[in-house]
Amino acid sequence: MNAANEHFRRYGYNKTTVADLARAIGLSTAYIYKFFESKQAIGEAVSAAALGRIIAELQKIVVQKKSAAERLRAIYQRLTRESAALFFNERKLHEIVITACSEAWRPISDYEEAMLGLIRELVAEGREKGEFERKTPIEETCRAILQTMELCWSPRLLERHLDDLEERAAVMANLVLRSLAP
Amino acid sequence: MNAANEHFRRYGYNKTTVADLARAIGLSTAYIYKFFESKQAIGEAVSAAALGRIIAELQKIVVQKKSAAERLRAIYQRLTRESAALFFNERKLHEIVITACSEAWRPISDYEEAMLGLIRELVAEGREKGEFERKTPIEETCRAILQTMELCWSPRLLERHLDDLEERAAVMANLVLRSLAP
Repeated sequence: MNAANEHFRRYGYNKTTVADLARAIGLSTAYIYKFFESKQAIGEAVSAAALGRIIAELQKIVVQKKSAAERLRAIYQRLTRESAALFFNERKLHEIVITACSEAWRPISDYEEAMLGLIRELVAEGREKGEFERKTPIEETCRAILQTMELCWSPRLLERHLDDLEERAAVMANLVLRSLAP
Repeated sequence: MNAANEHFRRYGYNKTTVADLARAIGLSTAYIYKFFESKQAIGEAVSAAALGRIIAELQKIVVQKKSAAERLRAIYQRLTRESAALFFNERKLHEIVITACSEAWRPISDYEEAMLGLIRELVAEGREKGEFERKTPIEETCRAILQTMELCWSPRLLERHLDDLEERAAVMANLVLRSLAP
């Protein structure tokens, strides 16, 4: 996995074959196929790891001792920064995420499911403490918030808005927080 | 323009050269270059026309005699339907819009500018009539709403969410309207 990660990072996912990868690692193609049934399976493992690291960062925010509003705002900011870092510093990983999105790989739906879980936790807590309104069905609220987060992490949208990512995220967090007001 | 439109619609933008286009229309390449300085210029004219038709539809909603909230909701719905129609019925035009987005062509920024104008009109009217809150700087509010509309029209996001486009748009309109409540 680490070797595949390193190899994709340097040469990119699209241009690498399983044979290239095997050669670089010093293993036989047959041996690699024992663990991964296809190149896509390797790409999925690599992207799942990258997205998992972002979720872990967001999870750290959720458990902080701050108001639900502050934590939600911090999540927009952190999600934007981590996604932009993937674009600026880990360009090849960013390319894998683009492929993962356009081919609807499993790690993308897992990523959104995990994000939805974090949103649910924060919204439920905010509602309980009277910080957020309680009239709207919570599932609708959380799914709409998840949609707005796609504006922060979607690799294609990131590419379109590189100039003002952080400002856009802040403005979006503000709108969402206004929508949550009791 | 009509001939180019027709040609791109059938054969796609990416695979067509100006020479192909000239041959299909029965004109010389030199003659076409009198009017358009490049293939991209033709693609821009075609995409500007397609996006202009969508703006015209939204404009019809803005002038209706309904509450600002109802009109804003209708805009999310119409924008989603028109963008999906481009995807389902005008696949080649949809491809041009993808290229226009990824290469940041002028018609895309014009499109967003026009959409922002419509949002400003509705939000200002809603504020004046006491339907919407007035505390948030209006420009921030409108820019955040514009961001959420990209969830409805962005060709890449459309492709990801074909199964439930209309429901997603309705849920997003609800969130935005909650954020606008006085």
